[in-house]
Amino acid sequence: MRRTLYNEDHETFRDTVRAFAERTLIPGYPKFVEQRGVDREVWLEAGKLGFLGLEVPEQYGGSGAEDFRFNAVVNEEFAKVSMGFASCLGIHADIVAPYLVHLTTEEQRQRWLPKFCTGELWTAIGMTEPSGGSDLAALRTTAVKDGTDWIINGSKTFITNGYSADLVIVAARTDPEKGAKGISLFAVEAGMPGFERGRKLDKIGQHESDTAELFFSDVRVPAENLIGEEGMGFISMMKLLPQERIGAAITNLAHATQVLHETLQYVKDRKAFGSSIGSFQHNKFLLADLFTRIEVAQAYVDRCVEAHTEGEMTPIDAAKAKYWSAEVQNHVLDHCVQLHGGYGYMTEYRAAQAWTDARVTRIWAGSSEIMKELIGRDLGL
Amino acid sequence: MRRTLYNEDHETFRDTVRAFAERTLIPGYPKFVEQRGVDREVWLEAGKLGFLGLEVPEQYGGSGAEDFRFNAVVNEEFAKVSMGFASCLGIHADIVAPYLVHLTTEEQRQRWLPKFCTGELWTAIGMTEPSGGSDLAALRTTAVKDGTDWIINGSKTFITNGYSADLVIVAARTDPEKGAKGISLFAVEAGMPGFERGRKLDKIGQHESDTAELFFSDVRVPAENLIGEEGMGFISMMKLLPQERIGAAITNLAHATQVLHETLQYVKDRKAFGSSIGSFQHNKFLLADLFTRIEVAQAYVDRCVEAHTEGEMTPIDAAKAKYWSAEVQNHVLDHCVQLHGGYGYMTEYRAAQAWTDARVTRIWAGSSEIMKELIGRDLGL
Amino acid sequence: MRRTLYNEDHETFRDTVRAFAERTLIPGYPKFVEQRGVDREVWLEAGKLGFLGLEVPEQYGGSGAEDFRFNAVVNEEFAKVSMGFASCLGIHADIVAPYLVHLTTEEQRQRWLPKFCTGELWTAIGMTEPSGGSDLAALRTTAVKDGTDWIINGSKTFITNGYSADLVIVAARTDPEKGAKGISLFAVEAGMPGFERGRKLDKIGQHESDTAELFFSDVRVPAENLIGEEGMGFISMMKLLPQERIGAAITNLAHATQVLHETLQYVKDRKAFGSSIGSFQHNKFLLADLFTRIEVAQAYVDRCVEAHTEGEMTPIDAAKAKYWSAEVQNHVLDHCVQLHGGYGYMTEYRAAQAWTDARVTRIWAGSSEIMKELIGRDLGL
Amino acid sequence: MRRTLYNEDHETFRDTVRAFAERTLIPGYPKFVEQRGVDREVWLEAGKLGFLGLEVPEQYGGSGAEDFRFNAVVNEEFAKVSMGFASCLGIHADIVAPYLVHLTTEEQRQRWLPKFCTGELWTAIGMTEPSGGSDLAALRTTAVKDGTDWIINGSKTFITNGYSADLVIVAARTDPEKGAKGISLFAVEAGMPGFERGRKLDKIGQHESDTAELFFSDVRVPAENLIGEEGMGFISMMKLLPQERIGAAITNLAHATQVLHETLQYVKDRKAFGSSIGSFQHNKFLLADLFTRIEVAQAYVDRCVEAHTEGEMTPIDAAKAKYWSAEVQNHVLDHCVQLHGGYGYMTEYRAAQAWTDARVTRIWAGSSEIMKELIGRDLGL
Repeated sequence: MRRTLYNEDHETFRDTVRAFAERTLIPGYPKFVEQRGVDREVWLEAGKLGFLGLEVPEQYGGSGAEDFRFNAVVNEEFAKVSMGFASCLGIHADIVAPYLVHLTTEEQRQRWLPKFCTGELWTAIGMTEPSGGSDLAALRTTAVKDGTDWIINGSKTFITNGYSADLVIVAARTDPEKGAKGISLFAVEAGMPGFERGRKLDKIGQHESDTAELFFSDVRVPAENLIGEEGMGFISMMKLLPQERIGAAITNLAHATQVLHETLQYVKDRKAFGSSIGSFQHNKFLLADLFTRIEVAQAYVDRCVEAHTEGEMTPIDAAKAKYWSAEVQNHVLDHCVQLHGGYGYMTEYRAAQAWTDARVTRIWAGSSEIMKELIGRDLGL
Repeated sequence: MRRTLYNEDHETFRDTVRAFAERTLIPGYPKFVEQRGVDREVWLEAGKLGFLGLEVPEQYGGSGAEDFRFNAVVNEEFAKVSMGFASCLGIHADIVAPYLVHLTTEEQRQRWLPKFCTGELWTAIGMTEPSGGSDLAALRTTAVKDGTDWIINGSKTFITNGYSADLVIVAARTDPEKGAKGISLFAVEAGMPGFERGRKLDKIGQHESDTAELFFSDVRVPAENLIGEEGMGFISMMKLLPQERIGAAITNLAHATQVLHETLQYVKDRKAFGSSIGSFQHNKFLLADLFTRIEVAQAYVDRCVEAHTEGEMTPIDAAKAKYWSAEVQNHVLDHCVQLHGGYGYMTEYRAAQAWTDARVTRIWAGSSEIMKELIGRDLGL
Repeated sequence: MRRTLYNEDHETFRDTVRAFAERTLIPGYPKFVEQRGVDREVWLEAGKLGFLGLEVPEQYGGSGAEDFRFNAVVNEEFAKVSMGFASCLGIHADIVAPYLVHLTTEEQRQRWLPKFCTGELWTAIGMTEPSGGSDLAALRTTAVKDGTDWIINGSKTFITNGYSADLVIVAARTDPEKGAKGISLFAVEAGMPGFERGRKLDKIGQHESDTAELFFSDVRVPAENLIGEEGMGFISMMKLLPQERIGAAITNLAHATQVLHETLQYVKDRKAFGSSIGSFQHNKFLLADLFTRIEVAQAYVDRCVEAHTEGEMTPIDAAKAKYWSAEVQNHVLDHCVQLHGGYGYMTEYRAAQAWTDARVTRIWAGSSEIMKELIGRDLGL
Repeated sequence: MRRTLYNEDHETFRDTVRAFAERTLIPGYPKFVEQRGVDREVWLEAGKLGFLGLEVPEQYGGSGAEDFRFNAVVNEEFAKVSMGFASCLGIHADIVAPYLVHLTTEEQRQRWLPKFCTGELWTAIGMTEPSGGSDLAALRTTAVKDGTDWIINGSKTFITNGYSADLVIVAARTDPEKGAKGISLFAVEAGMPGFERGRKLDKIGQHESDTAELFFSDVRVPAENLIGEEGMGFISMMKLLPQERIGAAITNLAHATQVLHETLQYVKDRKAFGSSIGSFQHNKFLLADLFTRIEVAQAYVDRCVEAHTEGEMTPIDAAKAKYWSAEVQNHVLDHCVQLHGGYGYMTEYRAAQAWTDARVTRIWAGSSEIMKELIGRDLGL
């Protein structure tokens, strides 16, 4: 099915992104995997090309695109190379950006956004805690007022970009009595005393992205680093999660689609029992099914992106897109491994690596179970 | 996800169709099930309302809508009531119509189309044979020239509307040497000597539709009843099958969506162990998943209908839509039965009946396996 | 995998059962389907052959086999012909029998068991109520003491053998204050004033078995018809349900196995595109998978029967066997339908009928969800 | 379901194996993962305890157990610790052993078996080739006679123990004209000129086992190293594969069972939204289902082991056990990951590692597709 989401401008932009990916991401991949993280130079170059400030108004150094489809293009092209590139980029450019653009004061925007757009100020967001998983309302990290400053204590885990970020938006409890309404957001910056990073976490996949635990022990954060109003943190996160989720959905499908196409080529080339293995009816029917699943899911995600571009996507649309795309992605990639036979178990083969990279998409950014909880509630259950 | 396929004109038309369904189809259903077929009065009324001639130019009594979305609306509203109504209507108005409009001579159009539009000439199409299933190229029914007439011998099976049709388009082999290129189409009319119907077939479901075997023994058909060019029958069928399949996809999803909504209401109302059974997490997550599957599939089918309306839908798009919608429909309805507990096994409950009605959609109009074969070939496998 | 459950005695007995099935059940099937119930003559003959009293001690006319494998043989051979025969027989001979043998007084045993064994006294058991489904603790039928008699009011639904039974064991609440411990069992006999049957329920399948609603309005039941101790009904049912469930598991697999073998033959015989359809790799792999599922499940069920014969099967073993065998049966039969193509939707084809017959096995005798609840609890969850 | 496969002798032996695992395998695991292979000391200790020579007659230093259940015990206890330990051990003690015991000359047995039993002679088997995958009949490695010697050329891949083995049984084509009947087996020993190992392959999981490519370039092998008769290699492999497959099945289930039990404990301990996450109905039902699948599969595999012990297991029984156990294992472990949330993606968590370790079991030793091919053929398809 021909996609109708993008117009010529998007496709021209895609060429730029793809050229960057081929020039920078693909050759850098083995090194970044080895060192468990992307070189800063990559992000600086991405910044120069305008990929980081798509949501940032022009006066702060962004491109003020106001068209989420450009973000979608970046996500897709990065995801085609690896899930890890897409997730590091996405955290910064799609997920943190709206916090810094929409919840901040003019002073904050001027202070942070120009370097945010160049990649000099690299960012992360710290929601999840070791004890809490997807249950944001159970946050234990605290921020206690001391004069006009705040003193933050606690820890965060599974933080993408956590090891390399210059600025982390940290959700902390500012009023223990008020439940979800007692949570506020703070910009914790590298170098603040008491802010430590744990080692890079040893994940199953996505080794090219750095993921870390963050520790806060009596970190003194000035009032100027409170993001948004006190007590509004949970509400802000709920409001901005749909964009994170549709971004995840875009990435999930672009990644799976790319590997599926490569697998299609593999089964055409690979011979066994005297024929290309793709000619065996079992494999043929399987690939027919997998391509159908991908295209069907893509139609839905494209509709969501279209709706999001018009400001009409609901949180439940995003939850459905995130849930279903992750399930499809993992389903497809498991079969891609199988279609590669023994090579599907060798890390150097794309399908093998992609399978391990994708496993987290059913867990992060709200697990499939959390998505079903949200969708179920929306049904009135 | 809000659908964007339809505009106000379609929704106004939908009101008419729904009113007809409520006035005629719903109250008539038990009787039509009992007698294994719909009363002709129903079709005559549908004809009056313009539902039968949507694809027929105005000069032959149709509405010349030239917008398949109107057909889609009729399909959806009929399918919400029952699969059988939708399939009987669809065979006549969506599947047979293009044969009679596009392959016919002016004389034929004038002879058949006006009564086709009023419902006085009720139609069916005879492709499948007892020995052949989905393998159209293996047709055994023959048409042998005798002067300018043709003498048809053979049989057809699983023919929807077969018992009641006044005119059946019959695919027959006119040249045994030429394989697929030796097949032609004929209008066989009720009353032609040697044309007999078997009993109405005893199906698992869709009892309200008549399905029959047709027998042709030395049926003499005049040259004026050849539809399209001699030897072009297989090619014509291949060309028109995509519209049949997208029609099937529309119907599949509308049917499943309706029953799923009714099931949602049921689980909200039904109590067990002191709570509404919809509040149990297992059921809640299940319904979240089922609604997601439906909406994701709908986005794809809507894209196909949109493309079809613009003349851009490919046969493979249609094959994917037909395949996937049937799988989703059957998956959803199986769970709808389960969610009804013991009542899900009682014919009088909608979910029970719908489950049996839907089982054929993975088989007819090209089985899921045939769809995968087509899709696989399109992948170059 | 060769089964080791049965010895030569069982196989000799199996010959008798199979001969009976061929002589009586198979030829009678169309008539019994038509009339929605089995002729009493069938059960009388089954009684003569000793199939009904396998669990009944010899002094009451039974065979006192004390080896559940003989029951298993009867279940298997009946299920091979139809689910309905197996369920009608099973309700009487496997499910009701232990109530009448183990919970009764000597007087009751003498009064009921001889005719129970001959088939003159045909039985059913009434647990499920319209409002309650699988939630036995929510019983609304009441039995109130009046002198030494009990006055029963309420209704039961989905009662196999309900229309034809001479004696129904009815669970009723005798103490509204005591929850599960306030339930007792009564033998309600045909002809007792106030005991009425509703019409035979119109099920999706298993038309050869009668299933009915039962209504009790001020039915006076004498003290001699209380079965077991007052207040022990729920506990007795819980204790005897495992035998019902393992019986269901045996039946589920025998039924699916038989139809799968017939389908294997069908795909060998049926030709399409020039070959037997079983030779297509998709079908070949599918059948390999289905036979594997069946045999794997059979190994488990056989182990359960073996354990049950030795008095060692736990309720959780039975729940797992019942749950899994029903899932496997339905999965297998859905594919059997598909492998038959259009014929799989025609009632006269065994696969079609079997598919509708089997749908209830995931619902009755404790739904799959109830089984998972029990198993989950046993895991300490 | 209580297992009945083992008697007291097996359980006593299990205590020894488990003590060894706790003393040696568990503490050594991180180092062996790091170095991509097990220390030889481990195998020497295993040899002392008699784990390596279970199938070897006593006169050659083995224990001549002649009861495959002892092998099964070793497999199970090793697999509980890691798939990699079980596979390295299994290749040597279960898979290579019968070749060296049953196909060899007296001179060969005396030369190899004593050190085989002590672990001084560590072994591997080289069937799979880069170009061939599961298609053994397409072997390209050649052995050409030169005097009484053989000159071997070719390569093998995915060879477990390949890097560390002292002796590799290599399948090579000795007669290019004779297809499957032109394949013979050779003992290629470490140090033979022209026999080189590639680097240890970088697998997705099972890092503790060494897996390597082997290269043979003009390797001169003396006549005394031909194993079995010339031309009988393929037939021997076919004959001995069932034992490899039942060994794989045992390992698959023991591994999954262990991780599932650990996951059960995890969901009991882990809290979210104020409760243990195992108490959520979705998780509870899921675990009920997973335990059921495991136990059902175990009953089948146990029956196979029982049959194998009695010399009655067929190759098809083994294929079904291998196929199904691998599918169940992978299904279960995927859910174990999900139940761990974010921790399920962290390598240090057992479920995460186990999920990657298990992925190969659907591929190696004959992929699931090859198993279905074999089973399908056995059905006459």
